[in-house]
Amino acid sequence: MVISIMERTRMTKLAPANAPSDPSLSCPLTSLETPCLLVDEARMERNIDRLRTRLHEADVAFRPHLKTAKSWEISRRLMTRPNGPATVSTLREAEELIWRGVTDIIYAVGMAPDKLPRVQVLRSAFLRERGGVLTILLDSVEQAVAVAAASDPADPIPVLIEVDCDGHRSGVKPHDFTLLLAIAGALSPRARLMGVLTHAGESYEARGSAALAAAAEQERAAAVMAAEILRAAGWPCPVVSVGSTPTAFSAQSYAGVTEVRAGVFVFFDLVQAGIGICTQDDIALSVLATVIGHQREKGWTIIDAGWTALSCDRGTAGQVVDQGYGLVCDVAGRPVSGLIVTSVNQEHGIVAARPGAPRSDCELPIGTRLRILPSHACATATQHDRYHVIGSGGTEVTAVWPRFTGW
Amino acid sequence: MVISIMERTRMTKLAPANAPSDPSLSCPLTSLETPCLLVDEARMERNIDRLRTRLHEADVAFRPHLKTAKSWEISRRLMTRPNGPATVSTLREAEELIWRGVTDIIYAVGMAPDKLPRVQVLRSAFLRERGGVLTILLDSVEQAVAVAAASDPADPIPVLIEVDCDGHRSGVKPHDFTLLLAIAGALSPRARLMGVLTHAGESYEARGSAALAAAAEQERAAAVMAAEILRAAGWPCPVVSVGSTPTAFSAQSYAGVTEVRAGVFVFFDLVQAGIGICTQDDIALSVLATVIGHQREKGWTIIDAGWTALSCDRGTAGQVVDQGYGLVCDVAGRPVSGLIVTSVNQEHGIVAARPGAPRSDCELPIGTRLRILPSHACATATQHDRYHVIGSGGTEVTAVWPRFTGW
Repeated sequence: MVISIMERTRMTKLAPANAPSDPSLSCPLTSLETPCLLVDEARMERNIDRLRTRLHEADVAFRPHLKTAKSWEISRRLMTRPNGPATVSTLREAEELIWRGVTDIIYAVGMAPDKLPRVQVLRSAFLRERGGVLTILLDSVEQAVAVAAASDPADPIPVLIEVDCDGHRSGVKPHDFTLLLAIAGALSPRARLMGVLTHAGESYEARGSAALAAAAEQERAAAVMAAEILRAAGWPCPVVSVGSTPTAFSAQSYAGVTEVRAGVFVFFDLVQAGIGICTQDDIALSVLATVIGHQREKGWTIIDAGWTALSCDRGTAGQVVDQGYGLVCDVAGRPVSGLIVTSVNQEHGIVAARPGAPRSDCELPIGTRLRILPSHACATATQHDRYHVIGSGGTEVTAVWPRFTGW
Repeated sequence: MVISIMERTRMTKLAPANAPSDPSLSCPLTSLETPCLLVDEARMERNIDRLRTRLHEADVAFRPHLKTAKSWEISRRLMTRPNGPATVSTLREAEELIWRGVTDIIYAVGMAPDKLPRVQVLRSAFLRERGGVLTILLDSVEQAVAVAAASDPADPIPVLIEVDCDGHRSGVKPHDFTLLLAIAGALSPRARLMGVLTHAGESYEARGSAALAAAAEQERAAAVMAAEILRAAGWPCPVVSVGSTPTAFSAQSYAGVTEVRAGVFVFFDLVQAGIGICTQDDIALSVLATVIGHQREKGWTIIDAGWTALSCDRGTAGQVVDQGYGLVCDVAGRPVSGLIVTSVNQEHGIVAARPGAPRSDCELPIGTRLRILPSHACATATQHDRYHVIGSGGTEVTAVWPRFTGW
C-alpha cells in the first residue's frame, strides 16, 4: 500500500518533462494527491473544435495563443498544422515550440531590446534552415531602431506593429499615421514590417452579445485601419492579426483580417461563462482538492487548495455573479449547492455559500474530493507544472502532460 | 555576444536544482533576463537576525516557517540548527528538507487522511533511524480517528491540535474543552498528542502597535488555554506553538509558549510595511523587470512583468496606502516617483502614479530596468522557480538558488 502510493507519487509528480502518455498511469481521480490540476480532454477537444469550425466557416486563419496551456500536448491539438501557426507570450514558450518543430510563431508581447539576442539565436540556430519565422511585436520608434540595429539585412527580423484598439494596454492608436509610418520607416530596410496586430482586452468588460459584437468590430476596424494607413504609404502589410476569446466568438465580419488569435477558450473559465461566451459545462480545467476541516458554525468547509493551487485571480469580482476564487463541484464535476471558494490563504481555501446567500447545509466530510472550476484559467494553470488528463470516461486520469514554466 | 548571452541563459535559467553557488555566475543586474526574482542577501540576513535576536532575548524557541522561501539555501540560513526545527506548508517541502537532513518538522496544514501514507513513508524511510520527528496538525475527531488508524503504536505519529485563536481559518476554539478532549481521546493510544498550535492570521488586519500587541496576546492566551485544558485532563502537551510575522514582532509575553513560528519576515513585503512591522528598506525580495512601452497620454509605462511574475495578490488594497501590484524602484532599489504597478495582465504590468495622484513626469525609456517590491512576498516568490541573489555590494548577482515547487 505504502509503496504503491510512493510509486504513484513518483510517476505522477516526478514524471520527466517529455514523458509520453503511459496507459499504466490510468487511475481514478480519488487516488491522486491533492491539490492538482485536471483537464477534461473531451471538453477541451470540444472547445477547440468549436472555434476552429467557426473560423474555418469564416475563411480566416487561426493562430492559437498557447500561453494559457503552455503544454506541448495541448499546443499540438490547438494548432491547425504540426508546425503552426502559433502565438506565444514568452520566449520560453517559443523555445519549447521551436525545439519541437513549430516554424511559424508570433511572440505577442512588446519587444524588450535586451531580448533581441535570444530571438536572433532562435532564428539563426533553429528556424533559418527550416524557413521558419519568429515574428516580434513593437509599438515605438525606439524599439524599431533597436530591432533594425540587431537585424541582419540578409535575414531581416519580421515585425508586427501593435495597435491599441480599445485603450486596454499597449499599442499605437490605429489612426496615428505619424507614429505608424515613423515605426515602419525606422524598421526599414534592415528589419521587415509584416503587418499589424491588436488584442481587444477590453472585450472582457463587454456585456451582452451586441456589446461583444461591437468590441469585435472595433478590434477588426482598428487593425484594418492601421494596415490601410501603412499600405497607403507603400508598406505591404500582409498580416492583419486580431484576437481575444470574447471577440473570436462574437465577430460578425473578418473583412480585411488575415488571422485570429485566442487562448483561454481552450479551457474556458468562470470569467468567460460570466461574459456569456461559454457555459459552465464547457469549462475543461479544474483543481482537484480535498476537504481538510470545517468551521461549522460559520458554514465553512476548508480545503487543501489555496492561492498556490487556485491563484489569487478574482476575475469575476466585477461580474453579475461573483464566483470568488472558484466554483465548487463534486469529483464528477457537478456544482455543489452553489458553493464557492470565498477566501484563500497559501495552502487553505475556505468553501462557503456566496456572500448574502443562506448557509449551505451540505455536509462535505473530511477527505471529500472536490473539483474547483477556475475564475481565470490562465492564472490557475500557471500555478501548476503539469496537467492530469481526464479521459473520455470522465472518471479516470489517462495521462500526465507537463507545462512549460518560466520565461 | 550572442553565444555569451546563450551561455548566461543556460547557466542562470537552466541551472540544475542542486547546483552550488558558482562565483563565475556573478553578473550585474542589467545582464539578467527579465522578469526574474531577486533576493537581497544582506537585507534577508538582517531580517533573520532581527527575529532571532528578539526570540533569543525572550528565551523562546524559533521554528521558522519555510513556506515563503521554499529554498534550501534560505531554509538553512533561517533554521537555528542544520537539522531544524522547521515549519512547512506542504509535504513536498517536508521531503526536500528531510532529504537534506532536517529532522524536526511540523507540517502546519490540517491533515488530509489521504496524505497519511506519504507521511508514514517519510517517517519510516527517512526519519525513524535518525530519531527525527514529522509532526502533523488536525482539528477534528474525524482526522484523529484516521491518524490513529494509520499510526503504529510502536512508533506513534506525533500530532498537534490546531487552535483557532481569532476566527481566521481552521482550528478548535481554545475554550472548547469537549472537542479538545475528544480529539485527544481519539488519538490515544496509537498516535501521540504533542500539544497545540495556533496562527494569528487576523493580525494582518491589526493597525498600530497596541492592536498588534493585543493580537499577539490573544494568540498566546488561546494556545496556552487549550494546552492547560488538555493538561488538566492528563495529556502532557509539551508543545505550545504560536506564530505569524506580525505577532512574532509584537508579543509582550511568551509565558507558556514553547516556540514561535514566522515565515514572510525573511523577505518582508509591502503588506508588512503597511502593517508597520518593517520599513520598505527591509524588503529583501523584488522582481526585476524591463520597460517595453508607454501610453504617454495616460501616464503609463508598460513593463514585462505581469501576474505571472508579480502574482495577482492585492494584499495592500485594504491598507491606508494601496501599493497596487507592487512598488516601482530603480535597479538600485530606490523608489521611483511614487510609481506603482496599477494593473497586470499575464505578461504585462502597467506602471503609473497611484490613483488620484498627479501623473508622473518621470520618463522611463524602453529598456529601463526596474525592480518591483512585492505586495505579498509569499505569493510573488511562488511565481518563480529560482532566486537571483544580490550579494553584499548590492549590484551583482552572486548566486542562483532554486525553489521547491508543487505539493
